[in-house]
Amino acid sequence: MAATIRDVAQASGVHVSTVSRTFSAPHLVNAETRTRVLAVAENLGYRPNRAARALTTGRTHNLGLIVADISNPFFPPLIKAAQAHARARDYHVFVADTDEDPQVEEELIQTLTKQVDGVLLCSPRLSNRAIERLRADVPFVVVNRRVKGMPTILMDVGQGARLAIEHLTRLGHRRIALLSGPGGSWTSGEMREAAAAMDGVDLVILGPNAPTEQGGLAVAAEVIASGATGVLAYNDLVAIGLIEGLYERGVRVPGDISVVGVDDIVSGRLNRPKLTTVAMPTAAAGRMAVDLLLQSVDDGATPTLITLETGLVVRESTGEARS
Amino acid sequence: MAATIRDVAQASGVHVSTVSRTFSAPHLVNAETRTRVLAVAENLGYRPNRAARALTTGRTHNLGLIVADISNPFFPPLIKAAQAHARARDYHVFVADTDEDPQVEEELIQTLTKQVDGVLLCSPRLSNRAIERLRADVPFVVVNRRVKGMPTILMDVGQGARLAIEHLTRLGHRRIALLSGPGGSWTSGEMREAAAAMDGVDLVILGPNAPTEQGGLAVAAEVIASGATGVLAYNDLVAIGLIEGLYERGVRVPGDISVVGVDDIVSGRLNRPKLTTVAMPTAAAGRMAVDLLLQSVDDGATPTLITLETGLVVRESTGEARS
Repeated sequence: MAATIRDVAQASGVHVSTVSRTFSAPHLVNAETRTRVLAVAENLGYRPNRAARALTTGRTHNLGLIVADISNPFFPPLIKAAQAHARARDYHVFVADTDEDPQVEEELIQTLTKQVDGVLLCSPRLSNRAIERLRADVPFVVVNRRVKGMPTILMDVGQGARLAIEHLTRLGHRRIALLSGPGGSWTSGEMREAAAAMDGVDLVILGPNAPTEQGGLAVAAEVIASGATGVLAYNDLVAIGLIEGLYERGVRVPGDISVVGVDDIVSGRLNRPKLTTVAMPTAAAGRMAVDLLLQSVDDGATPTLITLETGLVVRESTGEARS
Repeated sequence: MAATIRDVAQASGVHVSTVSRTFSAPHLVNAETRTRVLAVAENLGYRPNRAARALTTGRTHNLGLIVADISNPFFPPLIKAAQAHARARDYHVFVADTDEDPQVEEELIQTLTKQVDGVLLCSPRLSNRAIERLRADVPFVVVNRRVKGMPTILMDVGQGARLAIEHLTRLGHRRIALLSGPGGSWTSGEMREAAAAMDGVDLVILGPNAPTEQGGLAVAAEVIASGATGVLAYNDLVAIGLIEGLYERGVRVPGDISVVGVDDIVSGRLNRPKLTTVAMPTAAAGRMAVDLLLQSVDDGATPTLITLETGLVVRESTGEARS
């Protein structure tokens, strides 16, 4: 068994509350006692219980990070950047996965808020109204959703969609299919809006689609039937699944149809053809979200909005339209 | 602000400790008071603080799950299965990522142990001795590492390695390269041991390799130089990177070299050629690990060892050896 606070109290000849104060409010303990308690604690390998300390100081030094689907390779670089950045500031990040389910998301938020100092909510599937209802408990930072009055990090996927579609039209594509994502996705809405506002594009919107390879496989026949020669997929997983689905139907990429993904995940770089994609600044978003959240924890939330640029990475899955 | 325990106490006309007891030990509160407190709490939207409840009941109803690298697609199916299984038992799972770093792993374990009721340690990179030192604080279950006296779930990757190598020898391959994984990996050791014990195989061991696509890309030239015509890679990511590295050097898979991966991740099914691989029972392991852990939490740890079978999935990346 690890040493308890009682062991330390006994070995130091002080009351348990003195040991507790030594860790939670050292300035209230006289120097000699403090030194003795700390030496005994170190000797016994005692680590102050964060749960107990949290009750005194109101700080757990934990942050929660909620993602829609931990198996989507979009999230790990964000999670890892947030974890490393938080660790350097003496905070731990615990990750919870909502399985793309708004109800699980709400439940997890409600549980987490009592156990952490703040929550990063990434690509939520909850409605804005539901998020606004929840936010009173602890500071929140939202990534990839605009919620009024809350600190927010957005990746400008609308700009990325415009770059992708310009790239396709410059290659001679006129009829372009946009594969939208899940219903609750802000990213998907932004892409749709940006695409619809562009001139000289004959746009077909197909979806909603599951944000997975399966989603891309499932929409392949519809893409062929649509007559589009250029495709902007909701994300790289959908693009990779689509390419496989087209290939199974004898349609070549980019020979017959050009495909652009979004996210720039690693497997898109190793796919054959290598994926042309909109690169998302996920690591930067993870770091900035932690900074914003710790600001909120320390000084109260200010409704900051940070928008990060996206960029187009041209590889092998796009080419000239058949003339 | 959310309602606090003080708000509930004041509005119910009872002492704070009575509110606390109502949630942590309801049988100690008389029925009339209990009903009143619960009604007030519901009215005010008060949720009992788990940190506070943990001090009374000794239970947080949280489990920690520590993985070596959240971006390795081997882990998400295990994480998701563990989360869903735990959720159905009123436990939340918080995930932490060690970035393949034994020091970070040790630090995370030490922090987590004070905040959760038990820890699932998946594919640890710490030495057995370090794990044995740590285990006293809370119940642990270890996945894919054999630690004496601890509840353990193993996936029988040695059996999978034998199946893979038999498959290769049946296709006429004699010289077979085994690409080992990171130094601290139990899985890698099991594969090496199983391969070395097989008759009629001319075995070359190359590594250690990073357990990523980059690791596979980096070892491609060495694989060609080794003269092996069959390869068993540490995992699917290494296999996918290797295939890309071979392709860049004009070596075809499976025409020139056959490649088998381990894990059966989704992108291996979409890779071209589709990957022959050892399927790992990750979801079952996640569920069983939660069951074992909750048993330990309730009744104390018993040193159970569960070994799960693996299987070979033959797809397109393996073929007849050139004669």
